[in-house]
Amino acid sequence: MKLVYTGKTKNVFALDDGNYLLKFKDDCTGADGVFDPGMNTIGLTIDGAGRAGLRLTKHFFEILNNKGIPTHYIDCNIDDVTMTVRPAKTFGKGLEVICRFRAVGSFYRRYGDYIEEAAALPAFVETTLKDDAREDPPITKDALDILGIVSAKDYETLKDLTQKIATIIKEELAKKNIELYDIKFEFGKIGDQIVLIDEISGGNMRAYRNGKYILPLDLEKMVLEE
Amino acid sequence: MKLVYTGKTKNVFALDDGNYLLKFKDDCTGADGVFDPGMNTIGLTIDGAGRAGLRLTKHFFEILNNKGIPTHYIDCNIDDVTMTVRPAKTFGKGLEVICRFRAVGSFYRRYGDYIEEAAALPAFVETTLKDDAREDPPITKDALDILGIVSAKDYETLKDLTQKIATIIKEELAKKNIELYDIKFEFGKIGDQIVLIDEISGGNMRAYRNGKYILPLDLEKMVLEE
Repeated sequence: MKLVYTGKTKNVFALDDGNYLLKFKDDCTGADGVFDPGMNTIGLTIDGAGRAGLRLTKHFFEILNNKGIPTHYIDCNIDDVTMTVRPAKTFGKGLEVICRFRAVGSFYRRYGDYIEEAAALPAFVETTLKDDAREDPPITKDALDILGIVSAKDYETLKDLTQKIATIIKEELAKKNIELYDIKFEFGKIGDQIVLIDEISGGNMRAYRNGKYILPLDLEKMVLEE
Repeated sequence: MKLVYTGKTKNVFALDDGNYLLKFKDDCTGADGVFDPGMNTIGLTIDGAGRAGLRLTKHFFEILNNKGIPTHYIDCNIDDVTMTVRPAKTFGKGLEVICRFRAVGSFYRRYGDYIEEAAALPAFVETTLKDDAREDPPITKDALDILGIVSAKDYETLKDLTQKIATIIKEELAKKNIELYDIKFEFGKIGDQIVLIDEISGGNMRAYRNGKYILPLDLEKMVLEE
Protein backbone atom coordinates (compact mmCIF):
# COMPACT_ATOMS: atom_id res chain seq x y z
CA MET A 1 0.00 0.00 0.00
CA LYS A 2 1.67 3.16 -1.20
CA LEU A 3 0.90 6.78 -0.17
CA VAL A 4 0.27 8.63 -3.43
CA TYR A 5 -1.26 11.90 -2.24
CA THR A 6 -1.34 13.89 1.01
CA GLY A 7 -4.47 16.03 1.08
CA LYS A 8 -5.65 18.61 3.58
CA THR A 9 -8.36 16.39 5.08
CA LYS A 10 -7.31 12.94 3.83
CA ASN A 11 -4.43 10.87 2.51
CA VAL A 12 -4.67 8.64 -0.56
CA PHE A 13 -3.01 5.22 -0.88
CA ALA A 14 -2.76 3.06 -4.02
CA LEU A 15 -3.95 -0.55 -3.52
CA ASP A 16 -2.53 -3.56 -5.34
CA ASP A 17 -5.82 -4.25 -7.15
CA GLY A 18 -5.82 -0.80 -8.82
CA ASN A 19 -8.30 0.80 -6.42
CA TYR A 20 -7.46 3.52 -3.89
CA LEU A 21 -7.75 3.74 -0.13
CA LEU A 22 -8.67 7.12 1.39
CA LYS A 23 -7.63 7.67 5.01
CA PHE A 24 -9.73 10.41 6.63
CA LYS A 25 -7.95 12.86 8.99
CA ASP A 26 -9.26 14.88 11.92
CA ASP A 27 -8.25 18.15 10.21
CA CYS A 28 -11.07 20.50 9.15
CA THR A 29 -11.13 23.46 6.76
CA GLY A 30 -11.53 26.92 8.26
CA ALA A 31 -9.38 29.62 9.82
CA ASP A 32 -8.16 30.43 13.33
CA GLY A 33 -9.93 27.52 14.99
CA VAL A 34 -13.30 28.26 13.37
CA PHE A 35 -14.80 25.73 10.95
CA ASP A 36 -15.81 27.05 7.50
CA PRO A 37 -16.67 24.72 4.60
CA GLY A 38 -16.03 27.59 2.15
CA MET A 39 -12.39 27.94 3.24
CA ASN A 40 -9.34 26.47 1.67
CA THR A 41 -7.05 26.18 4.67
CA ILE A 42 -6.94 23.88 7.68
CA GLY A 43 -8.38 25.91 10.55
CA LEU A 44 -8.69 23.32 13.29
CA THR A 45 -8.31 19.66 14.25
CA ILE A 46 -11.13 17.90 16.10
CA ASP A 47 -10.76 14.41 17.62
CA GLY A 48 -13.15 12.11 15.79
CA ALA A 49 -13.84 14.50 12.89
CA GLY A 50 -12.38 12.05 10.36
CA ARG A 51 -14.49 9.14 11.58
CA ALA A 52 -17.66 11.30 11.73
CA GLY A 53 -17.00 12.47 8.16
CA LEU A 54 -16.49 8.91 6.99
CA ARG A 55 -19.68 7.66 8.66
CA LEU A 56 -21.74 10.37 6.91
CA THR A 57 -19.91 9.73 3.63
CA LYS A 58 -20.71 6.00 3.86
CA HIS A 59 -24.35 6.82 4.66
CA PHE A 60 -24.82 9.13 1.68
CA PHE A 61 -22.69 7.19 -0.85
CA GLU A 62 -24.64 3.99 -0.12
CA ILE A 63 -27.93 5.85 -0.69
CA LEU A 64 -26.58 7.23 -3.98
CA ASN A 65 -25.20 3.87 -5.13
CA ASN A 66 -28.59 2.28 -4.38
CA LYS A 67 -30.29 4.94 -6.50
CA GLY A 68 -27.98 4.19 -9.44
CA ILE A 69 -25.96 7.44 -9.22
CA PRO A 70 -22.41 6.69 -10.44
CA THR A 71 -19.85 7.18 -7.64
CA HIS A 72 -16.31 6.02 -6.89
CA TYR A 73 -17.43 4.44 -3.57
CA ILE A 74 -16.81 0.70 -3.04
CA ASP A 75 -16.66 0.11 0.70
CA CYS A 76 -15.35 1.52 3.96
CA ASN A 77 -13.87 0.53 7.28
CA ILE A 78 -15.09 2.79 10.09
CA ASP A 79 -12.57 1.41 12.63
CA ASP A 80 -9.60 2.16 10.37
CA VAL A 81 -11.22 5.43 9.17
CA THR A 82 -10.64 4.37 5.55
CA MET A 83 -12.73 4.17 2.40
CA THR A 84 -11.99 2.05 -0.68
CA VAL A 85 -12.78 3.71 -4.00
CA ARG A 86 -12.43 3.08 -7.73
CA PRO A 87 -9.67 4.98 -9.53
CA ALA A 88 -11.13 8.08 -11.21
CA LYS A 89 -9.35 10.76 -13.19
CA THR A 90 -10.03 14.30 -11.91
CA PHE A 91 -11.02 17.18 -14.19
CA GLY A 92 -7.79 19.13 -14.60
CA LYS A 93 -6.05 19.33 -11.23
CA GLY A 94 -9.44 19.13 -9.48
CA LEU A 95 -12.76 20.89 -9.85
CA GLU A 96 -15.33 21.72 -7.17
CA VAL A 97 -18.98 21.85 -8.16
CA ILE A 98 -21.24 23.76 -5.79
CA CYS A 99 -25.02 23.47 -5.60
CA ARG A 100 -26.89 26.22 -3.77
CA PHE A 101 -30.43 26.18 -2.38
CA ARG A 102 -29.99 29.42 -0.40
CA ALA A 103 -27.88 32.54 -0.95
CA VAL A 104 -25.21 32.34 1.76
CA GLY A 105 -21.39 32.23 1.86
CA SER A 106 -19.46 33.49 -1.15
CA PHE A 107 -22.59 33.67 -3.33
CA TYR A 108 -24.10 36.26 -1.01
CA ARG A 109 -20.77 38.07 -0.62
CA ARG A 110 -20.54 38.41 -4.42
CA TYR A 111 -24.17 39.13 -5.32
CA GLY A 112 -25.54 40.78 -2.17
CA ASP A 113 -26.52 43.81 -4.24
CA TYR A 114 -29.14 41.67 -6.03
CA ILE A 115 -30.40 39.20 -3.44
CA GLU A 116 -31.32 39.01 0.27
CA GLU A 117 -29.10 36.88 2.50
CA ALA A 118 -30.39 33.27 2.67
CA ALA A 119 -32.98 33.83 -0.09
CA ALA A 120 -34.02 30.62 -1.88
CA LEU A 121 -32.09 29.51 -4.99
CA PRO A 122 -33.28 26.80 -7.44
CA ALA A 123 -30.42 24.26 -7.07
CA PHE A 124 -28.03 26.81 -8.61
CA VAL A 125 -24.76 25.23 -9.81
CA GLU A 126 -21.33 26.89 -10.08
CA THR A 127 -17.77 25.64 -10.37
CA THR A 128 -14.38 26.55 -8.90
CA LEU A 129 -10.90 25.25 -9.66
CA LYS A 130 -8.98 23.54 -6.86
CA ASP A 131 -5.94 25.81 -6.76
CA ASP A 132 -4.74 26.86 -3.30
CA ALA A 133 -2.24 29.39 -4.66
CA ARG A 134 -5.03 31.19 -6.57
CA GLU A 135 -7.68 30.75 -3.84
CA ASP A 136 -9.88 28.33 -5.80
CA PRO A 137 -10.94 30.76 -8.56
CA PRO A 138 -14.50 30.57 -9.92
CA ILE A 139 -14.69 29.40 -13.52
CA THR A 140 -17.43 29.36 -16.14
CA LYS A 141 -18.59 26.58 -18.44
CA ASP A 142 -16.99 28.38 -21.41
CA ALA A 143 -13.63 28.81 -19.64
CA LEU A 144 -13.59 25.14 -18.55
CA ASP A 145 -14.13 24.18 -22.18
CA ILE A 146 -11.51 26.55 -23.61
CA LEU A 147 -8.88 25.46 -21.07
CA GLY A 148 -9.52 21.78 -21.87
CA ILE A 149 -10.67 20.98 -18.32
CA VAL A 150 -14.32 20.04 -18.96
CA SER A 151 -15.99 19.83 -22.39
CA ALA A 152 -19.28 21.67 -22.91
CA LYS A 153 -21.05 18.31 -23.13
CA ASP A 154 -19.46 16.96 -19.92
CA TYR A 155 -20.35 20.22 -18.16
CA GLU A 156 -24.05 19.63 -18.81
CA THR A 157 -23.72 16.09 -17.38
CA LEU A 158 -21.86 17.48 -14.34
CA LYS A 159 -24.54 20.12 -13.76
CA ASP A 160 -27.36 17.63 -14.12
CA LEU A 161 -25.69 15.06 -11.81
CA THR A 162 -24.92 17.79 -9.26
CA GLN A 163 -28.55 18.94 -9.12
CA LYS A 164 -29.78 15.34 -8.86
CA ILE A 165 -27.35 14.37 -6.07
CA ALA A 166 -27.81 17.61 -4.13
CA THR A 167 -31.59 17.12 -4.26
CA ILE A 168 -31.27 13.55 -2.95
CA ILE A 169 -29.09 14.73 -0.03
CA LYS A 170 -31.47 17.63 0.63
CA GLU A 171 -34.44 15.23 0.81
CA GLU A 172 -32.53 12.84 3.10
CA LEU A 173 -31.65 15.70 5.47
CA ALA A 174 -35.22 17.03 5.38
CA LYS A 175 -36.36 13.72 6.94
CA LYS A 176 -34.36 14.76 10.02
CA ASN A 177 -35.76 18.30 9.99
CA ILE A 178 -32.46 19.60 8.61
CA GLU A 179 -32.30 22.07 5.72
CA LEU A 180 -29.47 21.94 3.19
CA TYR A 181 -28.36 25.46 2.17
CA ASP A 182 -25.45 24.50 -0.10
CA ILE A 183 -23.14 21.60 -0.85
CA LYS A 184 -19.84 21.08 -2.65
CA PHE A 185 -18.96 18.02 -4.73
CA GLU A 186 -16.03 16.69 -6.69
CA PHE A 187 -16.36 14.56 -9.76
CA GLY A 188 -13.99 12.44 -11.79
CA LYS A 189 -14.07 10.19 -14.81
CA ILE A 190 -13.76 6.41 -14.96
CA GLY A 191 -13.39 5.75 -18.66
CA ASP A 192 -16.12 7.87 -20.25
CA GLN A 193 -18.37 7.85 -17.21
CA ILE A 194 -18.56 10.86 -14.89
CA VAL A 195 -18.71 9.74 -11.24
CA LEU A 196 -19.01 11.47 -7.88
CA ILE A 197 -15.70 11.23 -5.97
CA ASP A 198 -14.21 12.50 -2.67
CA GLU A 199 -16.56 12.56 0.34
CA ILE A 200 -20.01 13.81 1.40
CA SER A 201 -19.84 15.02 4.98
CA GLY A 202 -20.49 18.02 7.17
CA GLY A 203 -17.29 19.56 5.85
CA ASN A 204 -18.75 19.80 2.35
CA MET A 205 -22.05 21.45 3.11
CA ARG A 206 -23.93 24.09 5.07
CA ALA A 207 -26.88 22.50 6.87
CA TYR A 208 -29.29 24.31 9.20
CA ARG A 209 -31.99 23.34 11.71
CA ASN A 210 -34.58 25.98 12.64
CA GLY A 211 -32.42 28.66 11.01
CA LYS A 212 -29.32 27.69 13.02
CA TYR A 213 -26.13 26.42 11.35
CA ILE A 214 -25.17 22.84 12.30
CA LEU A 215 -21.49 22.08 12.96
CA PRO A 216 -20.12 19.03 11.04
CA LEU A 217 -19.83 16.75 14.10
CA ASP A 218 -23.34 17.67 15.26
CA LEU A 219 -24.64 16.96 11.75
CA GLU A 220 -23.28 13.42 11.87
CA LYS A 221 -25.10 12.78 15.19
CA MET A 222 -28.37 14.32 13.98
CA VAL A 223 -28.36 12.32 10.74
CA LEU A 224 -27.16 8.95 12.09
CA GLU A 225 -28.27 8.83 15.70
CA GLU A 226 -31.55 10.72 16.01
CA MET B 1 -29.68 69.92 -19.11
CA LYS B 2 -29.65 68.03 -15.84
CA LEU B 3 -26.77 66.03 -14.30
CA VAL B 4 -28.25 62.59 -13.61
CA TYR B 5 -25.13 60.52 -12.87
CA THR B 6 -21.53 61.20 -11.83
CA GLY B 7 -19.33 58.36 -13.03
CA LYS B 8 -15.64 57.67 -12.49
CA THR B 9 -14.60 58.62 -16.04
CA LYS B 10 -17.68 60.54 -17.23
CA ASN B 11 -20.77 62.47 -16.16
CA VAL B 12 -24.23 61.89 -17.62
CA PHE B 13 -26.77 64.65 -18.35
CA ALA B 14 -30.42 64.22 -19.37
CA LEU B 15 -31.39 66.18 -22.51
CA ASP B 16 -34.83 67.68 -23.14
CA ASP B 17 -35.48 65.37 -26.13
CA GLY B 18 -35.10 62.22 -24.00
CA ASN B 19 -31.53 61.46 -25.08
CA TYR B 20 -28.47 61.69 -22.85
CA LEU B 21 -25.24 63.68 -23.05
CA LEU B 22 -22.04 62.02 -21.79
CA LYS B 23 -19.25 64.40 -20.72
CA PHE B 24 -15.87 62.63 -20.78
CA LYS B 25 -13.40 63.40 -17.96
CA ASP B 26 -9.60 63.28 -17.86
CA ASP B 27 -9.71 60.69 -15.03
CA CYS B 28 -8.41 57.19 -15.83
CA THR B 29 -8.81 53.87 -14.02
CA GLY B 30 -5.77 52.43 -12.29
CA ALA B 31 -3.92 52.77 -9.00
CA ASP B 32 -1.16 55.00 -7.65
CA GLY B 33 -0.69 56.94 -10.86
CA VAL B 34 -0.44 53.82 -13.05
CA PHE B 35 -3.08 53.19 -15.71
CA ASP B 36 -4.82 49.76 -15.60
CA PRO B 37 -7.99 49.04 -17.62
CA GLY B 38 -8.75 46.10 -15.30
CA MET B 39 -8.96 48.34 -12.21
CA ASN B 40 -12.01 49.80 -10.64
CA THR B 41 -10.54 52.93 -9.07
CA ILE B 42 -9.32 56.24 -10.47
CA GLY B 43 -5.55 55.99 -10.46
CA LEU B 44 -4.53 59.11 -12.34
CA THR B 45 -5.70 62.17 -14.26
CA ILE B 46 -4.13 62.99 -17.63
CA ASP B 47 -4.78 66.27 -19.48
CA GLY B 48 -6.56 65.42 -22.72
CA ALA B 49 -7.43 61.83 -21.74
CA GLY B 50 -11.17 62.56 -22.00
CA ARG B 51 -10.90 64.07 -25.49
CA ALA B 52 -8.62 61.24 -26.71
CA GLY B 53 -11.11 58.68 -25.38
CA LEU B 54 -13.99 60.44 -27.09
CA ARG B 55 -12.16 60.65 -30.44
CA LEU B 56 -11.50 56.88 -30.39
CA THR B 57 -15.06 56.20 -29.24
CA LYS B 58 -16.45 58.28 -32.14
CA HIS B 59 -14.16 56.44 -34.57
CA PHE B 60 -15.23 52.96 -33.45
CA PHE B 61 -18.93 53.69 -32.85
CA GLU B 62 -19.25 55.17 -36.36
CA ILE B 63 -17.64 52.04 -37.85
CA LEU B 64 -20.04 49.84 -35.84
CA ASN B 65 -23.12 51.93 -36.74
CA ASN B 66 -22.12 51.70 -40.42
CA LYS B 67 -21.90 47.91 -40.10
CA GLY B 68 -25.41 47.75 -38.64
CA ILE B 69 -24.33 46.86 -35.07
CA PRO B 70 -26.91 48.35 -32.68
CA THR B 71 -25.33 51.00 -30.41
CA HIS B 72 -26.54 53.94 -28.32
CA TYR B 73 -24.29 56.38 -30.25
CA ILE B 74 -25.93 59.35 -32.02
CA ASP B 75 -23.29 62.03 -32.36
CA CYS B 76 -20.46 63.77 -30.55
CA ASN B 77 -18.81 67.13 -30.07
CA ILE B 78 -15.04 66.84 -29.76
CA ASP B 79 -14.58 70.47 -28.65
CA ASP B 80 -17.03 70.11 -25.76
CA VAL B 81 -15.80 66.54 -25.06
CA THR B 82 -19.41 65.30 -25.13
CA MET B 83 -21.30 62.48 -26.83
CA THR B 84 -25.06 62.31 -27.44
CA VAL B 85 -26.61 58.88 -26.98
CA ARG B 86 -30.00 57.19 -26.99
CA PRO B 87 -31.45 56.28 -23.59
CA ALA B 88 -30.74 52.62 -22.81
CA LYS B 89 -31.60 50.63 -19.71
CA THR B 90 -28.60 48.85 -18.16
CA PHE B 91 -28.66 45.18 -17.16
CA GLY B 92 -29.16 45.32 -13.38
CA LYS B 93 -26.95 48.08 -11.97
CA GLY B 94 -24.51 47.58 -14.83
CA LEU B 95 -22.76 44.63 -16.41
CA GLU B 96 -19.33 44.45 -18.04
CA VAL B 97 -18.77 41.97 -20.84
CA ILE B 98 -15.14 41.10 -21.55
CA CYS B 99 -13.83 39.52 -24.72
CA ARG B 100 -10.37 37.98 -24.60
CA PHE B 101 -8.04 37.10 -27.49
CA ARG B 102 -5.02 36.49 -25.25
CA ALA B 103 -4.66 35.24 -21.67
CA VAL B 104 -3.53 38.32 -19.74
CA GLY B 105 -4.82 40.35 -16.77
CA SER B 106 -7.28 38.70 -14.38
CA PHE B 107 -7.83 35.71 -16.70
CA TYR B 108 -4.16 34.75 -16.41
CA ARG B 109 -4.12 35.50 -12.68
CA ARG B 110 -7.06 33.12 -12.17
CA TYR B 111 -6.16 30.33 -14.60
CA GLY B 112 -2.37 30.52 -14.79
CA ASP B 113 -2.16 26.89 -13.69
CA TYR B 114 -3.74 25.85 -17.01
CA ILE B 115 -2.46 28.34 -19.59
CA GLU B 116 0.69 30.23 -20.52
CA GLU B 117 0.67 34.01 -20.11
CA ALA B 118 -0.54 35.73 -23.32
CA ALA B 119 -1.57 32.43 -24.97
CA ALA B 120 -4.21 32.85 -27.69
CA LEU B 121 -7.90 32.61 -26.73
CA PRO B 122 -10.79 32.23 -29.25
CA ALA B 123 -12.74 35.46 -28.51
CA PHE B 124 -13.53 34.12 -25.03
CA VAL B 125 -16.41 36.01 -23.35
CA GLU B 126 -17.00 36.50 -19.61
CA THR B 127 -19.07 38.88 -17.52
CA THR B 128 -18.63 40.86 -14.31
CA LEU B 129 -21.10 42.95 -12.30
CA LYS B 130 -20.38 46.65 -11.88
CA ASP B 131 -20.23 46.82 -8.10
CA ASP B 132 -17.38 48.84 -6.59
CA ALA B 133 -18.09 47.66 -3.04
CA ARG B 134 -17.74 44.02 -4.12
CA GLU B 135 -14.85 44.63 -6.56
CA ASP B 136 -16.85 43.86 -9.74
CA PRO B 137 -17.48 40.16 -9.04
CA PRO B 138 -17.41 37.68 -11.94
CA ILE B 139 -20.80 36.15 -12.71
CA THR B 140 -21.95 33.23 -14.84
CA LYS B 141 -24.76 32.99 -17.38
CA ASP B 142 -26.80 30.87 -14.93
CA ALA B 143 -26.34 33.34 -12.04
CA LEU B 144 -27.30 36.30 -14.26
CA ASP B 145 -30.48 34.44 -15.17
CA ILE B 146 -31.36 33.40 -11.60
CA LEU B 147 -30.78 36.92 -10.25
CA GLY B 148 -33.02 38.41 -12.95
CA ILE B 149 -30.18 40.49 -14.44
CA VAL B 150 -29.88 38.88 -17.92
CA SER B 151 -32.15 36.13 -19.27
CA ALA B 152 -30.50 33.03 -20.76
CA LYS B 153 -31.75 34.13 -24.20
CA ASP B 154 -30.39 37.67 -23.84
CA TYR B 155 -27.06 36.26 -22.62
CA GLU B 156 -26.59 34.42 -25.91
CA THR B 157 -27.31 37.64 -27.83
CA LEU B 158 -24.85 39.54 -25.60
CA LYS B 159 -22.16 36.92 -26.14
CA ASP B 160 -22.70 36.86 -29.89
CA LEU B 161 -22.71 40.68 -30.19
CA THR B 162 -19.59 40.89 -27.99
CA GLN B 163 -17.65 38.46 -30.18
CA LYS B 164 -18.81 40.26 -33.34
CA ILE B 165 -17.91 43.74 -32.07
CA ALA B 166 -14.59 42.67 -30.55
CA THR B 167 -13.62 41.03 -33.83
CA ILE B 168 -14.46 44.21 -35.78
CA ILE B 169 -12.30 46.31 -33.41
CA LYS B 170 -9.52 43.72 -33.57
CA GLU B 171 -9.53 43.87 -37.38
CA GLU B 172 -9.55 47.69 -37.38
CA LEU B 173 -6.56 47.76 -35.03
CA ALA B 174 -4.73 45.13 -37.06
CA LYS B 175 -4.75 47.58 -40.01
CA LYS B 176 -2.46 49.77 -37.89
CA ASN B 177 -0.24 46.86 -36.85
CA ILE B 178 -1.85 46.83 -33.41
CA GLU B 179 -2.97 43.62 -31.70
CA LEU B 180 -6.04 43.57 -29.45
CA TYR B 181 -5.50 41.32 -26.40
CA ASP B 182 -8.79 41.98 -24.61
CA ILE B 183 -11.64 44.50 -24.52
CA LYS B 184 -14.48 45.35 -22.14
CA PHE B 185 -17.95 46.43 -23.23
CA GLU B 186 -21.19 47.54 -21.64
CA PHE B 187 -24.58 46.85 -23.11
CA GLY B 188 -28.07 48.14 -22.44
CA LYS B 189 -31.55 47.66 -23.78
CA ILE B 190 -33.65 50.09 -25.82
CA GLY B 191 -37.05 48.44 -25.80
CA ASP B 192 -36.32 44.81 -26.64
CA GLN B 193 -33.12 45.55 -28.55
CA ILE B 194 -29.71 44.97 -26.94
CA VAL B 195 -27.32 47.80 -27.85
CA LEU B 196 -23.68 48.60 -27.14
CA ILE B 197 -23.42 51.54 -24.70
CA ASP B 198 -20.69 53.47 -22.85
CA GLU B 199 -17.44 54.10 -24.76
CA ILE B 200 -14.78 52.27 -26.78
CA SER B 201 -11.39 53.74 -26.01
CA GLY B 202 -7.93 52.89 -24.78
CA GLY B 203 -9.35 52.71 -21.27
CA ASN B 204 -11.50 49.70 -22.20
CA MET B 205 -8.91 47.51 -23.84
CA ARG B 206 -5.41 46.11 -23.80
CA ALA B 207 -3.74 46.74 -27.14
CA TYR B 208 -0.15 45.83 -28.06
CA ARG B 209 2.31 46.61 -30.86
CA ASN B 210 5.25 44.27 -31.34
CA GLY B 211 4.52 42.68 -27.95
CA LYS B 212 4.57 46.05 -26.14
CA TYR B 213 1.50 47.38 -24.31
CA ILE B 214 0.15 50.66 -25.74
CA LEU B 215 -0.97 53.35 -23.28
CA PRO B 216 -4.49 54.77 -23.97
CA LEU B 217 -3.29 58.16 -25.21
CA ASP B 218 -0.70 56.59 -27.49
CA LEU B 219 -3.38 54.26 -28.86
CA GLU B 220 -5.52 57.22 -29.92
CA LYS B 221 -2.57 58.72 -31.82
CA MET B 222 -1.62 55.41 -33.47
CA VAL B 223 -5.19 54.70 -34.60
CA LEU B 224 -6.21 58.23 -35.71
CA GLU B 225 -3.00 59.94 -36.76
CA GLU B 226 -0.70 57.31 -38.23
